Amino acid sequence: MHLRVVLVEPLYEGNVGSAARAMKNFGFSDLVLVRPCKIGDFGLAMASHARDLIEDARIASSIEEAVDGASLVVGTTGKRLQAGEKHLRLHIRAPYLTPSDLRRMIEGMDGIVAILLGREDWGLTNDELALCDTLVSIPTSPQYPVMNLSMAAAVILYELSKASHGGSSVKMPSRETIDLLNRVFLEFLRAIMYPPHKIEYIAIMFKRIIGRSALTEREAHTMLSIFKRAMWRIGRGGEK
Amino acid sequence: MHLRVVLVEPLYEGNVGSAARAMKNFGFSDLVLVRPCKIGDFGLAMASHARDLIEDARIASSIEEAVDGASLVVGTTGKRLQAGEKHLRLHIRAPYLTPSDLRRMIEGMDGIVAILLGREDWGLTNDELALCDTLVSIPTSPQYPVMNLSMAAAVILYELSKASHGGSSVKMPSRETIDLLNRVFLEFLRAIMYPPHKIEYIAIMFKRIIGRSALTEREAHTMLSIFKRAMWRIGRGGEK
Repeated sequence: MHLRVVLVEPLYEGNVGSAARAMKNFGFSDLVLVRPCKIGDFGLAMASHARDLIEDARIASSIEEAVDGASLVVGTTGKRLQAGEKHLRLHIRAPYLTPSDLRRMIEGMDGIVAILLGREDWGLTNDELALCDTLVSIPTSPQYPVMNLSMAAAVILYELSKASHGGSSVKMPSRETIDLLNRVFLEFLRAIMYPPHKIEYIAIMFKRIIGRSALTEREAHTMLSIFKRAMWRIGRGGEK
Repeated sequence: MHLRVVLVEPLYEGNVGSAARAMKNFGFSDLVLVRPCKIGDFGLAMASHARDLIEDARIASSIEEAVDGASLVVGTTGKRLQAGEKHLRLHIRAPYLTPSDLRRMIEGMDGIVAILLGREDWGLTNDELALCDTLVSIPTSPQYPVMNLSMAAAVILYELSKASHGGSSVKMPSRETIDLLNRVFLEFLRAIMYPPHKIEYIAIMFKRIIGRSALTEREAHTMLSIFKRAMWRIGRGGEK
């Protein structure tokens, strides 16, 4: 498993430096910055012996570009829904994994996992969270749930570094396969004439279920074939 | 279990503030500072909404005074002995627990546990480590093992907070609902005329995917309705 850290529009260079240091502390090096703040002397000082990660970081102009090639895109969010809260955005923000849930899920998987961390003030937007295959949230105190960006990175990287690297690994589906599965499911919903105003919501729900299930390449292709076959059958109208 | 964080001669006010914020994030509030640096505006800014912890922190002139009343004194160290390294100081620096070992150890215990974190440059001295009942060390990369003080605090507090915090409390589907979903998926496979000799295998694959995805009650019902609707559409033969 290859871990990529994607900082989305970080505002403070000190946090970028601290996050880079935490990455190197836990043995990770693939850092992508989406439209970052300027990183000067203070950022490099906070990176300390991880300044090479800052210097080698890839700069991306969009999240899509940043997560290119990733089999699993994980959004982080501190804004968790409260129990009983119900609205249309439910599946954008919930349910979510704890960092240890995520570790158990990706343990032994072979592929690129991209972890998205949002802005210090607003985190990731709903549109950005909708792009993610699954969400992770660090269980924090209700009295003060909002963590510093680099602290949140350190906690998640610490947890994921505990994943064992030995043993056999299972190949994760490619980004293309996952995107195709989500697109075909959307076509399938239209083919079965699912109520149009619910389709977007259901598509995100499906993305989350698939995201959480740590699908293998083989399973993804089988699911694809099932939905394609169903659409073909619908087209044929039940005839033998 | 009551957790106390003891910062021993911290050098940078920013780290004290950040550590206080991490404490409040994970629901802890008992902070003791041993001969600390001056904590001014920057330290309070880093503490953010945890400045009350800084203001209420007890100042101690010695570690002995700081750990007064603690049932367990835990030293932290990043300077781990290398395999095969042997000298008289062996038992001062090793063996040590990982943060998760420590969590399992103190889970369900009633008493004060004091966690000592040392200076940014030198950590805790051998004499200070010798005072500790046990040691904890965060497993880090040999390429760059030295963590920032407040990051190390965040990681340890995160791990120890798992002893009391649960994950998300989303309602899981009943056994009946899961069984029904699996049965309906089987009917669906037949309805789309999936090759019969593959059906049993695919049904198990689906069950595993759902099992791993920790489906909510709501998601299970939605998936059920989708497969039922698809079968209804197949029966209707694609007509509007």
